[in-house]
Amino acid sequence: MTHLNRTNCGALRPADAGRDVTLAGWVDALRDHGEVLFIHLRDRSGIVQVVFTPEAASRAVCDTAATLRSEFCIRIGGKVVARADGTENPGIATGAVEVVADTLTILSGSAALPFPISEKSMVVGGAVKGDEPVNEELRLQYRYLDLRRPTMQDHLIKRHRIVKTIRDFLDDQGFIEVETPMLTKSTPEGARDYLVPSRHFPQNFYALPQSPQLFKQLLMVSGLERYFQIVRCFRDEDLRPNRQPEFTQLDLEASFIDEAFIYDLMEALTVRMFQVGGIDLPRPFPRITWLDAMNRTGSDRPDLRFDMTFRDVTDLFGETRYGIFRRILERGGCIKGINVKGQSERLSKNVLQNEYAKEIVPGFGAKGMTWMRVIEGGLESNIVQFFSEAERQGVPARFEAQPGDVLLLIADPSWSLVCSALGQLRLHLAHRLGLIPPDSYKPMWVTDFPLFDETDDGVTSCHHPFTMPDRTDFDPQDQTDLLALRSRAYDLVMNGEELGGGSIRINDMDLQQRIFQALGLNDAEVSEKFGFFLKALTFGAPPHGGIALGIDRVVSMILDTPSIREVIAFPKNRSAYCPLTQAPSPVAAAQLQELGLLDLGGACDLPGAEARQDPLENLSWVSRIGFAEAERPALTTAVAEARACAQRLGKEPATEAPLFTVAPVTNHTRPGAVARTHPLAENGALLQNAPAVKGGYFKVAAVLD
Amino acid sequence: MTHLNRTNCGALRPADAGRDVTLAGWVDALRDHGEVLFIHLRDRSGIVQVVFTPEAASRAVCDTAATLRSEFCIRIGGKVVARADGTENPGIATGAVEVVADTLTILSGSAALPFPISEKSMVVGGAVKGDEPVNEELRLQYRYLDLRRPTMQDHLIKRHRIVKTIRDFLDDQGFIEVETPMLTKSTPEGARDYLVPSRHFPQNFYALPQSPQLFKQLLMVSGLERYFQIVRCFRDEDLRPNRQPEFTQLDLEASFIDEAFIYDLMEALTVRMFQVGGIDLPRPFPRITWLDAMNRTGSDRPDLRFDMTFRDVTDLFGETRYGIFRRILERGGCIKGINVKGQSERLSKNVLQNEYAKEIVPGFGAKGMTWMRVIEGGLESNIVQFFSEAERQGVPARFEAQPGDVLLLIADPSWSLVCSALGQLRLHLAHRLGLIPPDSYKPMWVTDFPLFDETDDGVTSCHHPFTMPDRTDFDPQDQTDLLALRSRAYDLVMNGEELGGGSIRINDMDLQQRIFQALGLNDAEVSEKFGFFLKALTFGAPPHGGIALGIDRVVSMILDTPSIREVIAFPKNRSAYCPLTQAPSPVAAAQLQELGLLDLGGACDLPGAEARQDPLENLSWVSRIGFAEAERPALTTAVAEARACAQRLGKEPATEAPLFTVAPVTNHTRPGAVARTHPLAENGALLQNAPAVKGGYFKVAAVLD
Repeated sequence: MTHLNRTNCGALRPADAGRDVTLAGWVDALRDHGEVLFIHLRDRSGIVQVVFTPEAASRAVCDTAATLRSEFCIRIGGKVVARADGTENPGIATGAVEVVADTLTILSGSAALPFPISEKSMVVGGAVKGDEPVNEELRLQYRYLDLRRPTMQDHLIKRHRIVKTIRDFLDDQGFIEVETPMLTKSTPEGARDYLVPSRHFPQNFYALPQSPQLFKQLLMVSGLERYFQIVRCFRDEDLRPNRQPEFTQLDLEASFIDEAFIYDLMEALTVRMFQVGGIDLPRPFPRITWLDAMNRTGSDRPDLRFDMTFRDVTDLFGETRYGIFRRILERGGCIKGINVKGQSERLSKNVLQNEYAKEIVPGFGAKGMTWMRVIEGGLESNIVQFFSEAERQGVPARFEAQPGDVLLLIADPSWSLVCSALGQLRLHLAHRLGLIPPDSYKPMWVTDFPLFDETDDGVTSCHHPFTMPDRTDFDPQDQTDLLALRSRAYDLVMNGEELGGGSIRINDMDLQQRIFQALGLNDAEVSEKFGFFLKALTFGAPPHGGIALGIDRVVSMILDTPSIREVIAFPKNRSAYCPLTQAPSPVAAAQLQELGLLDLGGACDLPGAEARQDPLENLSWVSRIGFAEAERPALTTAVAEARACAQRLGKEPATEAPLFTVAPVTNHTRPGAVARTHPLAENGALLQNAPAVKGGYFKVAAVLD
Repeated sequence: MTHLNRTNCGALRPADAGRDVTLAGWVDALRDHGEVLFIHLRDRSGIVQVVFTPEAASRAVCDTAATLRSEFCIRIGGKVVARADGTENPGIATGAVEVVADTLTILSGSAALPFPISEKSMVVGGAVKGDEPVNEELRLQYRYLDLRRPTMQDHLIKRHRIVKTIRDFLDDQGFIEVETPMLTKSTPEGARDYLVPSRHFPQNFYALPQSPQLFKQLLMVSGLERYFQIVRCFRDEDLRPNRQPEFTQLDLEASFIDEAFIYDLMEALTVRMFQVGGIDLPRPFPRITWLDAMNRTGSDRPDLRFDMTFRDVTDLFGETRYGIFRRILERGGCIKGINVKGQSERLSKNVLQNEYAKEIVPGFGAKGMTWMRVIEGGLESNIVQFFSEAERQGVPARFEAQPGDVLLLIADPSWSLVCSALGQLRLHLAHRLGLIPPDSYKPMWVTDFPLFDETDDGVTSCHHPFTMPDRTDFDPQDQTDLLALRSRAYDLVMNGEELGGGSIRINDMDLQQRIFQALGLNDAEVSEKFGFFLKALTFGAPPHGGIALGIDRVVSMILDTPSIREVIAFPKNRSAYCPLTQAPSPVAAAQLQELGLLDLGGACDLPGAEARQDPLENLSWVSRIGFAEAERPALTTAVAEARACAQRLGKEPATEAPLFTVAPVTNHTRPGAVARTHPLAENGALLQNAPAVKGGYFKVAAVLD
């Protein structure tokens, strides 16, 4: 394959000495020694040192070389030579050679860089500019430069390798990759859909898929037997730190299979994916039921890289005199705890009482925390005085505690609150105390989830409504029976993160309809949302199941990056905004007109709209601040006065200039008066240090917005 | 890998005789011989005959077997036996064996099918129900059943194989697959964007990508050197027969390369892709300049599976007495023709004169066509009498004509009209006369396109504005100079279809700006649309180029399907509508409210909106019917009367029941009166024979809509 006869910079080795080569790439760094100019030339394969000397290169070449700056894109010709002993650079793979240049073409110059790109020093042990952390918003704005850094290129290349590994493996296993539609119908994944207006059918919308769930099940009905797809999915959620509005998913489904097939397949695949990152995972992955996971770690995605798993001590306090515990147990509650082994020196009485018991643990939702430091011959605690002797003996014994350990207990009438708060405490301590070993990977399957969660007015699916229950004899009207059901769902969890999840699906229309009934959907809703799918289940739908894996998250874990944005070429920021292209952006009114979007019914009243006719309710709604009853009379008066004042002002001629403003505003109180923009806003100085800027404005958190 | 210990139906051969197997799949066909029941059991791998006999199976199994119907999903256990001589079925790969069943489980029953699925007869030479063509809208509505047919499964599996071939090949060549955003900014591909409203930034929109053009160029600026992606793209076009609103593209780009690299790479790849379909393509692919392609075939995507290429005869008529030709040549025109070899028997004088010259060719935009049938010793034609002897000799000689040939000439002052009309005529004749050999594949590169096309008020890019011109010394103000530029673009063309196209790109900001200038974009427009991209070009952008290939079209050509919908799992119909899921569909007002879509400015006036305040103009606009000046007074009176009548009616109490209606309508003339729906509409009978139905409505062509 011709490539303008170019040699890869990073491939040169002492064995190449004497070869004439043509290289092309970017000036990673320069060192000017007067007569002699050294540069680091970088391409995707790596870096090699190139030398311009008057002996080897013409005057014209040397003169051109003198104009080189960082990140100029150049082509050079020259001869590979071994470096003299003692001048090798062990920091780069080609450090034993250099290329003595005799030709030079500047393919493209470079303006001054917004941040350094070079990650390798030309001098052994020298500092590298690229080591300094760069503001992420700036990196995203100049993503094309950010991606030039070898670390980021490595992320993209490894991601490609991992995804290729998936495809090769699944192809070997007889899976067929099928593309499903992006412009489709809303599927009930629980999150908000991104909508796409239809021009052909005004006031109708496509939804971008939250997952191809229904399509992959339809492909099973089609008899495709083994389907997979690496596919973009979309969720219009309020962005949490490690989420993106669009993300990539490995989606797969198979027919005539059971859970064991999925476990086998996915373990083999996961082992191969992690091998790309040089990580060996042992098989089989342990399996833990959801109930065990909650009882032992308080989480349905346990982090088992460290121990500190829960022990239940409820039984030890059956006849306790300690009032707090007694009242909790009388209400059917439980007491669980963890043993922070050998950390009593770092967890002083003060830290335990004033930080954890008073601040941190209440933040996790528990009313309090009981702490005990294990000392020679007993326990040190502010409550142990209320314990009986049996309790004082029993608790350390239950935790196999030794002097130097710290025992922490949480008690509450709610089992799930105890689990959740203690689980968060466990993680908090593990991070604070550095108990998580680096380069440790603990994959597992979490199984036997509840089928339904309780809601205010019924039940909701824990996974999605297509999940097969563990038994089919339930009564869709009996909430207690529904909440006792377990699902044939499974999550692949590693290091406290859910990498993926799936289930065996329902392939029987009657069962599927009873599930919808249990969820409180009426026939019309079912028919409108799922009619086509239910119909498909009447034509010999095979038993089937599958799983979906979050590729961004898997790759991020394999490459050990601080966020998934590091393994996505062009991510959005936390506001679902692209600092590079400035998407989303306004569009022409004619375009909206063509889509029939200009007036979809602005005048129609939505539920709650009447309430907001009241100025006070409107203020509450706009400001997102609730008003107490007692505050209302005073606020009503204040709002009325403000409105009256504004009306008076509006009628009087303007005698003073309006105040300065940053934003282009309309002066409602003095129609016709134009507000001036503050000079600092116009020259940009005002926005210079803003954490995030869009157009001429600061960006503020959505809650302020 | 466990698979419930299942054997593939299609894999059984005489060597398996005596084996006990478990099979699972669908009942493809049944033949009931009283005591003995034969079925064709089908899974993805193929079909095998299964026999239920009272000797091998229990009474219970036989009773269950008697309830089987087409497309029941079942599992059976049994023994493989060789079929008796003379009872083999050569129509299926497993035809030499059958499985004698001893167990049977019905996994899932099936309702009656909307169309037959089976494609194989159980009786040698027997008819197959699945052979009858099925209405495509019905197939799309029940796509999950349509895809159960082996032919359709084969399409999906082969598509997977072709796409896998692409990925394996490009990976071998050092290309990295990188995913680019779907929620992005509009790129100028010329078509209409699909928009996605942003919830975080009200009144702002993402665009779905028409192609990842700018992102792939940015990845080159990033130094990734070799990028590819198999990616969904979106165009909101008025759908032509073989278009889909979303389509899949192989997108690739490489740095430090020239055209030869792309030709080499893509030819090697195309050969491999077609091998999946058993098609051998010879290399190298011929190259033809755009000008040659137009001069020889009248098309920039020539179909060279047959000859009939053009000859220019302009020079032969330099001094002609034939008035029509003489006047055309005086206006700088040209005359081109084709030789339809040996077809004079099928192209009678009547067909040539009354069909082609009078009807068909004028439909191609030409004013007329000159025809000559070559006979022994001369020409037969209605105009040859006006030709000089030299012309009578010269024309057949130019076409190397022999008796039995038919020569067709088109003359016009416009060279491009001659090319275009003659090109369409060439294709029309090829199809009519069956001159296109089956299983023939003629790939080629079309090169040296014009950089710009002329428009009413300037120029527009033939490909896109990032294409490198053949020279850079042009004056962006000089339209003649601009139209003389050629581009470094190339199209991969096969059998008259464009499979893909690309170009060497501009990597210099100044040159890119001059192109935008030539296109008439002002600085503000350039900055708003392309500011971020121009900036990227200032940081050492390498020389680069690439190509994009339409995967749907390539797969459709390899598998020889009548439309691209046959190689897409869940395509939209020609109205961009999905008959299966009924997308697009209405959404809840609350959802639109949340997106800030309810009122985007319905009151704001668009260009032309004022004119439509006039009731007559509005009627004209709504009905898409233009009114002549003479018609206007009468129409104005009629409209005014109709409005007055409606107003009068609205004030009077309703004495009669409203007319029947199919659609839920609002009675504007009698507020409060409810229109009844016709019973035939309610029970569905009215819509039963409609060509296409959506919701409770007929669908009508957009022009009526």
